[in-house]
Amino acid sequence: MSFITLKPGTLLSPVPAALIGSGAEEESGLVQNLMTAAWTGTVCSDPPMISVSIRPSRYTYELVEKSGEFTVNLTDRGLLKAADYCGVRSGREEDKFARCGLTKVRAEGLRLAPAVAESPVYLACRVQKRLALGSHVMYIGEIVSMGIREDLMDKSGAIRLEKAGLIAYSHGVYNALGEALGFFGFSVAAPEVFKRRMKKLREK
Amino acid sequence: MSFITLKPGTLLSPVPAALIGSGAEEESGLVQNLMTAAWTGTVCSDPPMISVSIRPSRYTYELVEKSGEFTVNLTDRGLLKAADYCGVRSGREEDKFARCGLTKVRAEGLRLAPAVAESPVYLACRVQKRLALGSHVMYIGEIVSMGIREDLMDKSGAIRLEKAGLIAYSHGVYNALGEALGFFGFSVAAPEVFKRRMKKLREK
Repeated sequence: MSFITLKPGTLLSPVPAALIGSGAEEESGLVQNLMTAAWTGTVCSDPPMISVSIRPSRYTYELVEKSGEFTVNLTDRGLLKAADYCGVRSGREEDKFARCGLTKVRAEGLRLAPAVAESPVYLACRVQKRLALGSHVMYIGEIVSMGIREDLMDKSGAIRLEKAGLIAYSHGVYNALGEALGFFGFSVAAPEVFKRRMKKLREK
Repeated sequence: MSFITLKPGTLLSPVPAALIGSGAEEESGLVQNLMTAAWTGTVCSDPPMISVSIRPSRYTYELVEKSGEFTVNLTDRGLLKAADYCGVRSGREEDKFARCGLTKVRAEGLRLAPAVAESPVYLACRVQKRLALGSHVMYIGEIVSMGIREDLMDKSGAIRLEKAGLIAYSHGVYNALGEALGFFGFSVAAPEVFKRRMKKLREK
């Protein structure tokens, strides 16, 4: 099979479809908003850092510029419709938390940006760097705290993220995460380790 | 359900498991390598840009520092084992292309970094910015060309990436991309548009 060469485009895939929580103090009081970002990724392990790219026309851009903080909320099947809605409508026009029936919750370590109570995991981030790249401004946020829904931790304290039913975004389409195919290091694992770990991963 | 607050970690999910192709001219001649990166994301639409974060201890780091270019190759089920292997073994010790039975192919617009012929999509990138963040150095690459396997284009010239069988990485686990749940804008689409587009997405 051979390649067809095309005009460059943003075809990295799959990517997250994350709900970005933001907030700022305005003359009218505290305002908070939600926006969906697929242009987000992990950029550093230690300290843990994440990038989120936002168009300057977005309301979330204004709020992040003012407050220097945001939350990244992972999305599951229950948040599918909200994830789409918060990507196409503006918080200048309506309160997207109310419209989507979502609940604001305090993100540990932040002052103004709320987390989404219905999300399986939130990452609370403080902006460390800002780069204007073109259509988007990229913010690098250091993760200052992280909240995980209690049913996603097992008795030993391990995170069982495979139980969350996360969704992925791939070239304009939201997909369920499908079956577990392997784990980091499986290609060099002993056969009995492979068997034991795959069995555990498939127990949901 | 309530959140348990944990020490911050890199829990953004799902993320890509991309094969990064690199190359440089050494005294011994042209050397080329492959490494797997999950710390990668789209950071700008126009110009199209991608971030890839690499630990300075990796061989790929040396090659990207020298050449200023890399490829990002998407991974499907057929590349699962190679994606894992290229994440755990070093190209200083062996030729990972040969070991994984993969074929180097020229990436349009680059001089030294090869694409992977077995990948459904490659993105050819030139480094525009470099930020040392801590454990990782983040490279922002501008996508200068893109190759897509010919069976992933339909007769009208549209990209049908849902046929690729891509894999995702989620907290140490490789997953298949599962069923299509919606498309960008579905939450505000007319019912007949929703029906027609979902039907098309589910035809693989």
